[in-house]
Amino acid sequence: MKTKKILLEEKDIPSAWYNIAADMKNKPLPFLHPGTKQPLKPEDLYPIFAKELCHQEMNDTDAWIEIPDEIREMYRIWRPTPLVRAYGLEKALDTPAHIYFKNESVSPVGSHKLNSALAQAYFCKKEGITNITTETGAGQWGAALSYAAKVFGLDLAVYMVKISYEQKPYRRSIMQTFGAQVIASPSMSTKAGRKILTENPMYQGSLGTAISEAVELAMETPNCKYTLGSVLNHVMLHQTVIGLEAEKQMEIAGEYPDIVIGCFGGGSNFSGLSFPFLRHKINEGKDIRVIAAEPASCPKLTRGEFQYDFGDETGYTPLIPMFTLGHTFAPAHIHAGGLRYHGAGALVSQLRKDDMVEAVDIKQLDTFKAAVLFAQAEGIIPAPESSHAIAAAIHEANVAKEEGRQKTILFNLSGHGLIDMTAYDQYISGDLQNYELSDAEIAGNLDKLEKIV
Amino acid sequence: MKTKKILLEEKDIPSAWYNIAADMKNKPLPFLHPGTKQPLKPEDLYPIFAKELCHQEMNDTDAWIEIPDEIREMYRIWRPTPLVRAYGLEKALDTPAHIYFKNESVSPVGSHKLNSALAQAYFCKKEGITNITTETGAGQWGAALSYAAKVFGLDLAVYMVKISYEQKPYRRSIMQTFGAQVIASPSMSTKAGRKILTENPMYQGSLGTAISEAVELAMETPNCKYTLGSVLNHVMLHQTVIGLEAEKQMEIAGEYPDIVIGCFGGGSNFSGLSFPFLRHKINEGKDIRVIAAEPASCPKLTRGEFQYDFGDETGYTPLIPMFTLGHTFAPAHIHAGGLRYHGAGALVSQLRKDDMVEAVDIKQLDTFKAAVLFAQAEGIIPAPESSHAIAAAIHEANVAKEEGRQKTILFNLSGHGLIDMTAYDQYISGDLQNYELSDAEIAGNLDKLEKIV
Repeated sequence: MKTKKILLEEKDIPSAWYNIAADMKNKPLPFLHPGTKQPLKPEDLYPIFAKELCHQEMNDTDAWIEIPDEIREMYRIWRPTPLVRAYGLEKALDTPAHIYFKNESVSPVGSHKLNSALAQAYFCKKEGITNITTETGAGQWGAALSYAAKVFGLDLAVYMVKISYEQKPYRRSIMQTFGAQVIASPSMSTKAGRKILTENPMYQGSLGTAISEAVELAMETPNCKYTLGSVLNHVMLHQTVIGLEAEKQMEIAGEYPDIVIGCFGGGSNFSGLSFPFLRHKINEGKDIRVIAAEPASCPKLTRGEFQYDFGDETGYTPLIPMFTLGHTFAPAHIHAGGLRYHGAGALVSQLRKDDMVEAVDIKQLDTFKAAVLFAQAEGIIPAPESSHAIAAAIHEANVAKEEGRQKTILFNLSGHGLIDMTAYDQYISGDLQNYELSDAEIAGNLDKLEKIV
Repeated sequence: MKTKKILLEEKDIPSAWYNIAADMKNKPLPFLHPGTKQPLKPEDLYPIFAKELCHQEMNDTDAWIEIPDEIREMYRIWRPTPLVRAYGLEKALDTPAHIYFKNESVSPVGSHKLNSALAQAYFCKKEGITNITTETGAGQWGAALSYAAKVFGLDLAVYMVKISYEQKPYRRSIMQTFGAQVIASPSMSTKAGRKILTENPMYQGSLGTAISEAVELAMETPNCKYTLGSVLNHVMLHQTVIGLEAEKQMEIAGEYPDIVIGCFGGGSNFSGLSFPFLRHKINEGKDIRVIAAEPASCPKLTRGEFQYDFGDETGYTPLIPMFTLGHTFAPAHIHAGGLRYHGAGALVSQLRKDDMVEAVDIKQLDTFKAAVLFAQAEGIIPAPESSHAIAAAIHEANVAKEEGRQKTILFNLSGHGLIDMTAYDQYISGDLQNYELSDAEIAGNLDKLEKIV
């Protein structure tokens, strides 16, 4: 019988994260102070993040950063994750392609987010920090950080976008079960929240507002730091355990991927899988294609512009060099909440600029069509976010079939969709739609940016 | 670093199911025809179930039943499941006990139910059956069977208790995503349903009614059979892959359990884990305790009576020899929907009668207290059903601590609770309650039974 899952042992959990910045020919441009436009140093970020994370963020010299034993110990709860040969999907597509997926959905919170959540909570704890804050949209990151905070004995306050707080009670309850305090944002607990609620008492919230509240609480609370689940370089770093394991597993399978695919929001699961493979492309000229699959309604890599832009809607953060749709861009309410972000992280943006990675944009209905096909073929109901990667993988498998070529395709199943069934329900009922995005709308937001690059 | 998960390879998936009936000193009493009170033969069940399953049901001579390759192939999607050392829970309890759990929640549908669903769908397909029916309460079984039906190309109709259909839309959507037809029961699609709706148009449904509808549809549809997710002997048989794997894994861990625990509804996950260990108790006099953890509000093993009783509320099924609260007993609406069943399967009932297994009853609030402790210690939010096993394991670990003895405790984590977060929400908000059950209420239902034993 053919092997379905390629498994590693706990001793094979990577002992170091891979820092692609050290290998990149063109380093990412520095973050800039929004006022002075001067490059930031790690110390400039100390008020917001744990010091060790500030240094990881700006480190472009060390290719390998050792993973502390305390974090590896916790990774053992679910890592190494399986690499799965998608025989069922291959059969359904009748393709000569070999399709593999890295199954990050087996984490106890159902997604890859725990890889960085545990790391961030650990470094905060180690520096004597007692309280942390964050924001969450759909709730994947908030759920992961809630468990990580519990593990390392930190008090966590999560600002959850109000509309999600009300419409996605399952993830809110998961966070509360792990002991986190969850606050609907905008709230009366911060100046930023109070200002918005005073002006507009019925405002349903946004990720930008939630970030502002979480940052403000962290700045004004003794011994408290802020954490973020994507976009930043140190988050990508922590996620590379995904690709490092996958590399070993592909070796056991006796194959090397021709194409590596991840869905793309801020970049955390995409980078986590692809960076370890990209290092062979950068260092040895290995011939692989790396594809970021983003929503057609939020297409920063395919239709955005490379510019300095803020990480949040209100403009509190440093200026980040990135492919962006403009920080004032308001993405349509697709179900892949984790991909509704205006910009790409600095590392991926530079790699995209240097043509090391490709990008495709996928319409919402196509992602759900792919998701249902995958679910029926492989048994796993994927997260709406991950379904973008599945749709891209199916496209490449169909191309392989047309060309009559045996290609090896690897994608990241970043999470399962068991808590996103209302989205499936709407798709099955025919109530879902695609969202068109005009060039004028994109240009309108980009035009507002101060052009620095 | 200490090993957290004891893993097996795909080649270690058991090649045969263990049939405890062959080893039992006192065989279970036969099923009886409700009219003639004569023992049933396998052929008598042919109109309802696939023939192979009828023979498995009555087989008390072959200790090992080979698992067809087609089923083992599908088991590879998620099996072997991990055996996990609950270091986090041990630390939280400060107990000298070693606590292990078999993690059946990693199945793509989130519970152990797929072990039997795939087997039942396979045998139906093999006999040329094209359509199958079933009923589901909370939806765990329905979700598993929906995927299994899709795998083997069968059309499936699931009668889902109406109140669950409306209140648990996530599991309904999972079934629909896998391609099943889901019908709220009572429905107008059967005589049984029409009769009930005519008399009481607002009736919210019950498992008994849903069984009646599913059986009727199977009987009246060409090439159609009925399937059931628990209670019956062949379901217990299929679930023994759990315990057979756990046995190997405990051996790798260098331990043997002193206590084996499963939550108890009809018996499927409890039997699946415990029967392979019980065979050493039966055949070699091995000194282990096997504990069924049932809800205090549905205590058939602790407060019920051993009698012949119907499997369904309305009395359509054969008479089954079992510990029962009476088939007219209406369990309180606890969140552990999978444990709301009036009787225990014939095999476990006989083993309980012979003192081979013990039983404990656990109150709803105690199960959620245990569940939250477990979630915070181990990262996994357990299903409300499985939380009964966790509560029993915690109790035994506390006893071990009081006695200062190092005991080895193994329990079955039959499923995760990610789709049951409304229950956690109510618990955290203080809105959950225990249900008291008077002796008079139990006696009232038992008095209605015709006493045959």
